[in-house]
Amino acid sequence: MDEKLKELKETMGTLTDLGHASSLLSWDQETYMPPGGVESRGRALATLGKMAQEIGTDEKVGKLLEELGPWAAEQDPDSDDARLIIVSQRAYDKAVKVPPDMVAERAMLTTMANAAWREAREKSDYSIFEPHMEKIIEFNQRYADLFKPYEHAYDVLLDDYEPKMKTEDVKKIFADIRPKQVELIEKIANAKQVDDSVLFKHYPKAEQIAMGEEIAKLIGYDFNRGRQDEVHHPFQTTIGYGDQRITYRVDENFFNTYIFSIMHEGGHAMYEQGVPKSLSRTALYGGTSLAVHESQSRMWENLVGRSLPFWEFYYPKLQARFPEQTKGVSMEDFYKAVNKVEPSYIRVEADEATYNLHIMLRLEIEIGLLEGTIAVKDLPQVWDDKFEEYLGIRPRNNAEGVLQDVHWSFGLFGYFSTYALGNLVSLQLWEKINEDIPGLDDQMRSGEFGKLLGWLNENVHAHGSKFYPQDLVQRITGSKINGDAYIKYLNKKFGDIYGL
Amino acid sequence: MDEKLKELKETMGTLTDLGHASSLLSWDQETYMPPGGVESRGRALATLGKMAQEIGTDEKVGKLLEELGPWAAEQDPDSDDARLIIVSQRAYDKAVKVPPDMVAERAMLTTMANAAWREAREKSDYSIFEPHMEKIIEFNQRYADLFKPYEHAYDVLLDDYEPKMKTEDVKKIFADIRPKQVELIEKIANAKQVDDSVLFKHYPKAEQIAMGEEIAKLIGYDFNRGRQDEVHHPFQTTIGYGDQRITYRVDENFFNTYIFSIMHEGGHAMYEQGVPKSLSRTALYGGTSLAVHESQSRMWENLVGRSLPFWEFYYPKLQARFPEQTKGVSMEDFYKAVNKVEPSYIRVEADEATYNLHIMLRLEIEIGLLEGTIAVKDLPQVWDDKFEEYLGIRPRNNAEGVLQDVHWSFGLFGYFSTYALGNLVSLQLWEKINEDIPGLDDQMRSGEFGKLLGWLNENVHAHGSKFYPQDLVQRITGSKINGDAYIKYLNKKFGDIYGL
Repeated sequence: MDEKLKELKETMGTLTDLGHASSLLSWDQETYMPPGGVESRGRALATLGKMAQEIGTDEKVGKLLEELGPWAAEQDPDSDDARLIIVSQRAYDKAVKVPPDMVAERAMLTTMANAAWREAREKSDYSIFEPHMEKIIEFNQRYADLFKPYEHAYDVLLDDYEPKMKTEDVKKIFADIRPKQVELIEKIANAKQVDDSVLFKHYPKAEQIAMGEEIAKLIGYDFNRGRQDEVHHPFQTTIGYGDQRITYRVDENFFNTYIFSIMHEGGHAMYEQGVPKSLSRTALYGGTSLAVHESQSRMWENLVGRSLPFWEFYYPKLQARFPEQTKGVSMEDFYKAVNKVEPSYIRVEADEATYNLHIMLRLEIEIGLLEGTIAVKDLPQVWDDKFEEYLGIRPRNNAEGVLQDVHWSFGLFGYFSTYALGNLVSLQLWEKINEDIPGLDDQMRSGEFGKLLGWLNENVHAHGSKFYPQDLVQRITGSKINGDAYIKYLNKKFGDIYGL
Repeated sequence: MDEKLKELKETMGTLTDLGHASSLLSWDQETYMPPGGVESRGRALATLGKMAQEIGTDEKVGKLLEELGPWAAEQDPDSDDARLIIVSQRAYDKAVKVPPDMVAERAMLTTMANAAWREAREKSDYSIFEPHMEKIIEFNQRYADLFKPYEHAYDVLLDDYEPKMKTEDVKKIFADIRPKQVELIEKIANAKQVDDSVLFKHYPKAEQIAMGEEIAKLIGYDFNRGRQDEVHHPFQTTIGYGDQRITYRVDENFFNTYIFSIMHEGGHAMYEQGVPKSLSRTALYGGTSLAVHESQSRMWENLVGRSLPFWEFYYPKLQARFPEQTKGVSMEDFYKAVNKVEPSYIRVEADEATYNLHIMLRLEIEIGLLEGTIAVKDLPQVWDDKFEEYLGIRPRNNAEGVLQDVHWSFGLFGYFSTYALGNLVSLQLWEKINEDIPGLDDQMRSGEFGKLLGWLNENVHAHGSKFYPQDLVQRITGSKINGDAYIKYLNKKFGDIYGL
């Protein structure tokens, strides 16, 4: 079996290398590629994707897995090799259902759609993006149908980002937390409002970037295995082992934009940097699901970056860096400012209390589009109506409405829910971490994050994608994904800030 | 035949896409890759290279070419399709002679050799590089022997960079121009020397880069299809159609370093930007040979960038940008400064009159190494002796002697001659251009380069690599590659500058 396992791993190494190239091509597309390169980039990505699909679905791989399956069943079920076979078998079974031409089609489609989306958002003109969106929906419908029979077509899409998660489960979780979040938001709306004017002073870009590098290093992001670059829509990407990059956007007139995206993407990157080398070049490399990934980014962004202990430590340094901007603002007031709750248009800038509502409306819209109950041409109208229903405000244009997110232009459908699920998981983990690390608040108060990162390395990162997300969360916390800890956290934190 | 041609072109499209990815991976490695990524980058590049080799030498390709050959012979011999088959057949015949193991061996060998060379040059210690150089020579001997019978083993290597060019031809050309260049250099040495102290003032980096962007745009480099980035060793790379990047190095205390590398790499990039889209994704895309490529880079660097008309136009702008640095220096004196002739150690910094001598000594050494008449261990001694013989000065250490160039560490053997040949071709073309475009000097004097670039687009770039270099030069100028125009140019230009 050793020979067969070796052969399987060699194929995975090749797939890793193709993925390495694709990741760099995509990263470059967002950071430095000149506009003229868009078409040839689309073709290159399409070809690499198609090759990876062909290699990954080759019947040789199927045969190897078939032969290795019984052997794997006799191994320690938690061992790397046993999990490798099981996870690979699942991936193989899914991949063989997708014809190579469709893989190439998606790459080409989304390269063009993304370029159109950029222009559309810039001009706040949905009509530029609409024909591409039509194609993307049609593609996703066709894609879902490859996996018939299914309980719900949306399950197929969701499963690509959140293995084994069902649409029904997500709906139930959202139905549970939505009224509780709405209740909190209403209470906050009636409380004394927070003054966040300090955030809207002028913070020069170069100074912000220097601060971001300082904070990213402080929390444990390794620049020897990464870098930060400017983009329109921040993301984290792993090019290959030892190369986990983060990206950022800077608003010189709004403090939150840059620094919280650095901590957010840094959280994603530290997850990937924490996956051991022994899993690299296998199907177990990288994070296990988007929700678990998001639990890491949101933990560093919110549970650390928007916490009182963090600002107790960092605010004096911030004041030293930006003395004019922070003049006359106490640490407590600054803490309240970065935590101000207010319904707003842009998801990525939403506060912790309203954030999940942005996701819930997207879930409803995605399901509607897939089912055909929402027409692509009506999307702006539907968006604005639902937005008003969920958040009580109405977008003033498409750029701050339906065009705000990059995801659909990349064909990413079924993805958004994982953001809200990630919020919930971050708190489930956080409760456990605070049991396991007494005095964590005191550590943060003195700028120490090593024990926290060490815990995450050991309990989350070390497993790569060995365990499916629900299983991993259950293993660590004893429960499946649910909103209890998150709601408790929101009520406590914002109860204190708003004196509820 | 249409179906077969289409099939062949599809394979070429795939190879283009793999090349696209490899080019970006290499570009990123030199520009932005974090240090931790080096190992996984090496693996990814090796895998892509291996895949390209496998696809390009697949017997299906051989069969297609075999079937298309007779058909191609009946087409217009200058048509894209006829040339595509002929050029592809040649590339295929060469590629199948190289066993896949040797492709992998070269990748491994040169990765190690390049790392050793970097250290050796840094420490100016040839002994670190010597064992690797031994292996590289041995590899190249074995490589050449794959192509037996040959007139000369060196022909095989040369042919990889300069299709169809023979060692004997290069030797003859060099033998013709060498005494003429030496005579000129001697005359210059006895003339009144040029004061180039203006070049060694402090030119701040940001200002230089702004100037470079201005000049690159002025001469016609299209930033919509390119960009400039900082590296240790400047190069130009085509990622794909519509994406031709240049790179630069800046020395704040030596004016020439940055601006002439921008014009040089810009010249390479404009060649590639000028190749029509119809040839992209085929074996005819890109420049036809390194010498013809170099004729473009050297034309923009020297025949434009170091010309009197150019500085008549640009010097007032330079003075406005750098008033302190250029104070009291007339346009004529600045022109003389950037053209100062002086034997120097480093090839890439050599003036036009001495440059080719740097190449001639490398040719002799490469042939000697390949024939075994020069031993690898004696290389530093041989280098220094020959250098003194050719240029009248003796390197003070190996870093400024035998270790100065990166090429051998990458296994690039037979490459150097093309630099000198490119100089010669640039002048052969220049003579023809000045016949075809009356008043070119006046155009340059008023900052107009559109007709010049248009001529190059039409006569050189439009053909991509359809025609082999000697044939292309003959087509355009009526002669094969020779040094007459270059010597005439050197004598006139430096006769004027030095009052000979």
